[in-house]
Amino acid sequence: MKTILSLFLVLALAASAAEKPFGLVLHGGAGVIERSSLSAEREAEYRAKLTEARDAGYAILERGGAALDAVIAVVTILEDSPLFNAGKGAVFTADGTCELDASVMDGRTQAAGAVAGVKHIKNPITLARSVMEKSGHVMLIGDGAERFAQQEGFTLVPNEYFQTEHRRQQLERAKKNAAAKKTAVLDREDHATRIARYGTVGCVALDRQGNLAAGTSTGGMSNKRFGRVGDAPIIGAGTYAHNATCAVSATGWGEFFIRVGVARDIAAQLEYRGTPLKTAAATTIAKVGALGGDGGVICIDKDGNIALPFNTAGMYRGYRVSTGAVGVEIFGDK
Amino acid sequence: MKTILSLFLVLALAASAAEKPFGLVLHGGAGVIERSSLSAEREAEYRAKLTEARDAGYAILERGGAALDAVIAVVTILEDSPLFNAGKGAVFTADGTCELDASVMDGRTQAAGAVAGVKHIKNPITLARSVMEKSGHVMLIGDGAERFAQQEGFTLVPNEYFQTEHRRQQLERAKKNAAAKKTAVLDREDHATRIARYGTVGCVALDRQGNLAAGTSTGGMSNKRFGRVGDAPIIGAGTYAHNATCAVSATGWGEFFIRVGVARDIAAQLEYRGTPLKTAAATTIAKVGALGGDGGVICIDKDGNIALPFNTAGMYRGYRVSTGAVGVEIFGDK
Repeated sequence: MKTILSLFLVLALAASAAEKPFGLVLHGGAGVIERSSLSAEREAEYRAKLTEARDAGYAILERGGAALDAVIAVVTILEDSPLFNAGKGAVFTADGTCELDASVMDGRTQAAGAVAGVKHIKNPITLARSVMEKSGHVMLIGDGAERFAQQEGFTLVPNEYFQTEHRRQQLERAKKNAAAKKTAVLDREDHATRIARYGTVGCVALDRQGNLAAGTSTGGMSNKRFGRVGDAPIIGAGTYAHNATCAVSATGWGEFFIRVGVARDIAAQLEYRGTPLKTAAATTIAKVGALGGDGGVICIDKDGNIALPFNTAGMYRGYRVSTGAVGVEIFGDK
Repeated sequence: MKTILSLFLVLALAASAAEKPFGLVLHGGAGVIERSSLSAEREAEYRAKLTEARDAGYAILERGGAALDAVIAVVTILEDSPLFNAGKGAVFTADGTCELDASVMDGRTQAAGAVAGVKHIKNPITLARSVMEKSGHVMLIGDGAERFAQQEGFTLVPNEYFQTEHRRQQLERAKKNAAAKKTAVLDREDHATRIARYGTVGCVALDRQGNLAAGTSTGGMSNKRFGRVGDAPIIGAGTYAHNATCAVSATGWGEFFIRVGVARDIAAQLEYRGTPLKTAAATTIAKVGALGGDGGVICIDKDGNIALPFNTAGMYRGYRVSTGAVGVEIFGDK
């Protein structure tokens, strides 16, 4: 009898463990992405890369890997692709160089790491992780962040590694438009700039152990000046994760995302008034919109619910959850 | 009769306007401040400077000035004093220079501005305000922030302006202790470093129009390396203001304050569950403590309530509210 009871207990535990949902959501930026301006060939490239990254991350989760590892794997693949404004293929600053920002947060411990303004780190998301795990700090910027990277054994790459012809042309167009309109800092309405502005990448994941993680990486804004930093490396704005609530990665007009504290604002609604994830995420994006900003977020909560709202024409995105939801989408109508 | 009614109405309106509370709270850092280690003379200097800054800010509010102007005035006075770790008298980095961070937020519009890693701006808080009002951005870092400052007509000062003998000795002690303990990055437990770490300054204010504002300025950590950025320039961590809830400025072990998102976390409790300010502030400081961090915050809400909790031995602080509360305190027992 005792043995039979024990067996039942083991089976019940195994079943409940098996039932625990896990999964991830990723984004490759939100912005003025319209069907008419994206060729079928280019669209297929985006869908293929988003699918590749999604499935690589999901495989890690499926075999019991950590949410943090899945997030790093996904973001690394997107950074390595010239399609997105992060790592290789990052947009150019006004000076004609690439300056990269990234951040990561571990929902299990609320540990966090971020780098801003780095120019020679192939995968900024992995440096953000090293900052989190080995520096004793959360945020390192500029040359200092790269000195830390060298100490940690990172190989520095020449800035040319990140530079692509496509982004150079984007910079030229942005400069020409800015000059034509005689705007001092940056043309807020320029179409090309608006697309480039929102090409951040990110991933949020929930693993079988119930741990959440979030990561975000970006090249920032095309034609940016003055060492401008957006929301991507700001914990609470572009990135946030806490096992008690949810994991969030944002992409959009960074200034508005910082002012609203987008990622933390979504988690705070879950924490302090039990708002369902979808409602919370929509409420926060509406706050951004009310201030005049735009963009989107990807979120996954501790129960495996996901939300991917955006108030732009499109957002490159993918998701896969063990409970069934799976997809890769670009436009507002999928 | 009509005239008498109108007169009553005018008087009632005047009375309600007069009753609207206004006031401010300021801090000069929290940390290992013990009576035994502070001479009577030095204590008198701190009390005098805190009183001077407090009254200068209060005078602005009293004559109907903006909360934002009061915050800038108070923080500027504290930056100019060598007593505090901000502006003149900032701590030294491991390289022997001063690198300054600051941020400001306007609760009326949720506009925000921040600078990090600047070396030649006499009053970083005023540059943070210019970033907010004139750059189209929220956060500028390093050389880029100083190029923007030059464009805006700021006079750059040599780094020597910030450097004091007292702080140089502090760096030497920190380095000696770190070397003795062979710690790689920074000695977390070193007494001198712990004091220096928490010397941030800040101010929060509520004006007669019901507008809130918050500002924070710091020299960061003594012996800091790698372009480390703490919570002071991070909107939502060191600084936050929203007219619907409260204004907050933090001072403490920045890494923990970023992870908790201290300033925004306090406001979120007011926003999403109607928590009274004092309870919300205490809850958030307890979160910092639970993770192993320490420090304090100053807060004022839209109704003129104030809260100044800290989990360190002391916090340099002052406050004055039109409803009566007024004081300058240093230790845990006043």
